[in-house]
Amino acid sequence: MNYPNGIKRVNTQEISYKNRGMTLENDINNSNEYYRETEKAFIYKKPTPIKITKVDYPSRDKAVIKEAFFTIPSTTDYNGLYKGKYIDFEAKETKSKTSFSLNNIHPHQIKHLENISKNGGIAFLIIRFTTLNETYLLPAKEFFQFLEKKEKKSIPISFFKENAYLLKDNYTPRIDYLKIVDNLIGGKVNG
Amino acid sequence: MNYPNGIKRVNTQEISYKNRGMTLENDINNSNEYYRETEKAFIYKKPTPIKITKVDYPSRDKAVIKEAFFTIPSTTDYNGLYKGKYIDFEAKETKSKTSFSLNNIHPHQIKHLENISKNGGIAFLIIRFTTLNETYLLPAKEFFQFLEKKEKKSIPISFFKENAYLLKDNYTPRIDYLKIVDNLIGGKVNG
Repeated sequence: MNYPNGIKRVNTQEISYKNRGMTLENDINNSNEYYRETEKAFIYKKPTPIKITKVDYPSRDKAVIKEAFFTIPSTTDYNGLYKGKYIDFEAKETKSKTSFSLNNIHPHQIKHLENISKNGGIAFLIIRFTTLNETYLLPAKEFFQFLEKKEKKSIPISFFKENAYLLKDNYTPRIDYLKIVDNLIGGKVNG
Repeated sequence: MNYPNGIKRVNTQEISYKNRGMTLENDINNSNEYYRETEKAFIYKKPTPIKITKVDYPSRDKAVIKEAFFTIPSTTDYNGLYKGKYIDFEAKETKSKTSFSLNNIHPHQIKHLENISKNGGIAFLIIRFTTLNETYLLPAKEFFQFLEKKEKKSIPISFFKENAYLLKDNYTPRIDYLKIVDNLIGGKVNG
């Protein structure tokens, strides 16, 4: 089970949101906020999917969820609209210096990316190698080319270096991944 | 505060999922499932946005959310991909026989629909008058024409009859709203 970024494993304690600023999720959220403010794109992170089983309703305006469980997401974490195009991607971090394990992505998320890609949407992965401090945008097309070979259960860093786009650290937005999406769309339209 | 469909207000009791089959949300989820299975469109309901404040972590593979709160959604409930187009909509039920109150839609959801509409996405509302058993698809364009007049805080049923599309009950899918979306896209392309 993967936990959403920023949620610590604790025993019925308060959740710590310390150090959140360093995560890939926060960098992407920050970038999406910038894109929205500048009306460049409208891309959002979907809420974490949970199954709610108990709700306490002490007063008219207040509801407290008292029991709920994390569920496996059926799609990717991020989607939205950019230059009239449907954008869809998953973002993951790995501590490995050598490869990205495919166990990090659910089979139905892969199927989802395939559906989007086949039906005119722009689909990709954003993978950060935290130890190397390198972040890559891997287009769906290249991702599926790797999967078709069925050789390995993890994507080696060399594959990223050859087939993905390195996303450089930036200030506003923190990672300007739409620059790369412009290439995927096929050009300098309105760019 | 609006509660997600199917979640009853109870005092720390089990949630009842009775009669869920009758709701607009379930009809739309059923239709989206049909669209996905037939690879016609990939449109999903977003998870209910919540703020998690306490998580119990009793064992390695198990996490139980022990405290969380419903938060106001920043976007609409449904979005996805159809014929290469970005689709985005909000769905609401009303018991009123005469009008749909604008209080049912958050101001930032209205702003979101406006952004989508202005940037090449297909945006609309699906409103069901449960007492009348009538369901309408109101395109964003007509919705904003109504808002611009700033005359009323609710949209009268007569406005729906004149400016929206009546969605008839169906079997598979239960409400075939993409037929109307074809009109919004502008035609019989691949239709």
